[in-house]
Amino acid sequence: MAEDVKRGKGCLIIIGGHEDRDPEGDRVILKEVARHVAGGKLVLATVASHQPEGYFEEYQKAFDDLDIGELVELYVEDRNEASDRDKLAVLDDAAAIFFSGGDQLRITSQIGDTGIEAKVRAIYERGGVIAGTSAGASVMSDTMLVKGTSSETHRIGDLHMAPGMGLIRNVIIDQHFAERGRFGRLIGAVAHNPRVLGIGIDEDTAAVVEDDIFTVIGSGAVYVVDGSDVSYSNLAEARPERVLSMHDARVHVLGNGNRYDLKRRRPIPPSDR
Amino acid sequence: MAEDVKRGKGCLIIIGGHEDRDPEGDRVILKEVARHVAGGKLVLATVASHQPEGYFEEYQKAFDDLDIGELVELYVEDRNEASDRDKLAVLDDAAAIFFSGGDQLRITSQIGDTGIEAKVRAIYERGGVIAGTSAGASVMSDTMLVKGTSSETHRIGDLHMAPGMGLIRNVIIDQHFAERGRFGRLIGAVAHNPRVLGIGIDEDTAAVVEDDIFTVIGSGAVYVVDGSDVSYSNLAEARPERVLSMHDARVHVLGNGNRYDLKRRRPIPPSDR
Repeated sequence: MAEDVKRGKGCLIIIGGHEDRDPEGDRVILKEVARHVAGGKLVLATVASHQPEGYFEEYQKAFDDLDIGELVELYVEDRNEASDRDKLAVLDDAAAIFFSGGDQLRITSQIGDTGIEAKVRAIYERGGVIAGTSAGASVMSDTMLVKGTSSETHRIGDLHMAPGMGLIRNVIIDQHFAERGRFGRLIGAVAHNPRVLGIGIDEDTAAVVEDDIFTVIGSGAVYVVDGSDVSYSNLAEARPERVLSMHDARVHVLGNGNRYDLKRRRPIPPSDR
Repeated sequence: MAEDVKRGKGCLIIIGGHEDRDPEGDRVILKEVARHVAGGKLVLATVASHQPEGYFEEYQKAFDDLDIGELVELYVEDRNEASDRDKLAVLDDAAAIFFSGGDQLRITSQIGDTGIEAKVRAIYERGGVIAGTSAGASVMSDTMLVKGTSSETHRIGDLHMAPGMGLIRNVIIDQHFAERGRFGRLIGAVAHNPRVLGIGIDEDTAAVVEDDIFTVIGSGAVYVVDGSDVSYSNLAEARPERVLSMHDARVHVLGNGNRYDLKRRRPIPPSDR
């Protein structure tokens, strides 16, 4: 685990969905996004949604009194549009891109390996911010969770994964975590390959990744499932309808202000700050 | 952790709720109960319920073709009845008692420290079976979970506990576990005192405790949260509305047939059987 976890110099803001967007509310997470954008241009990518109407307006209101120089929407109706010169130009001088919620497969199938994806990577590499909520959070890892049962016993064959955008390596991200009872499926994902660290993010909560450390902000918790010490799992032996068995997973629950070192795979004791 | 975990010589069948009761169904758990009753008398205690009508009839149908010598209902309308000679006589020659679901506080407030409770203990001590589902499962430990938020971020002050029946020590039990997204609250309960092992049981799933080992049966999973190695928790420092933080919990997910040694606090590798 000595290699870098992040692939770019920038910052990732990985949000568990339903972040406070009420112009009268605390908006802890959007304020953190704005703090990083620092008067620059923020592109709101609504690509995850089949019906993006209304998203942009909602975020426009939510960001209105925050320090965003320019807020622009980026949507692609279909994959052909993802190489349009006009669409690409939107990203040229962006300080940050924010992927809103919807379907993570819509993001990867419509912009994967296109000019837009290359530009997103370039923003990230040159030190910009990539934020994403819900589907926009899941999509950040090499392999992403696509589907899996919530609020019921996790069965081995229940989980569907797909290649993600690969902005952060050796992790797998789940969102709406406590709200949708997804502990079973995250532990199931880790059982597939304990090389990946499971990161489950509650609603209105974010992991802000800078260098190889993330800090938790927002009103919920971030759960980390570390399979390094797993002493037994039946993942490879059993039939798909069987219940997953797994011994010795390590779990951390991290609230607002808690930090986690992704490279060392250790939570940072609050006294060490 | 060298002391015995169980307080009686008998067997505990701790069920996560909604066990299959369909006379045409697999009824894996009820069959296990019947196997232990082995033609003897089973007392169905519906005390947990404010409206016990229908429970007994449902279980009567479910147990009808299984090896139960006699099935009798035990209900107490109020605490005064819990010392009635007639009520107590029901338990005299019972091989087993089965606590159905409802409110765990109704069980303890109505029969705690009464003649009925003494008889339950006596059955257990002489080697009988104590089964319980849902509220009837929670009630088995020294300290029981009474209330706490499900399917949302666990906050420090959310959890309510009360003294249980104390048939099994050093554990705390939660039920309807995956179905109601209760991982956060179980880990929160363990944070209060890592001396207790958290045991979360899915619906239609049971932990069958014999000697100091439990075996998982049924269609779901049993989750064990072991706080022995916890390196940090904010439980005592933070305000009740704060999110719980806890580092280094150990978690085991156990499916049908998996066994766990409560005395050594270790899952038993499936190869060791």
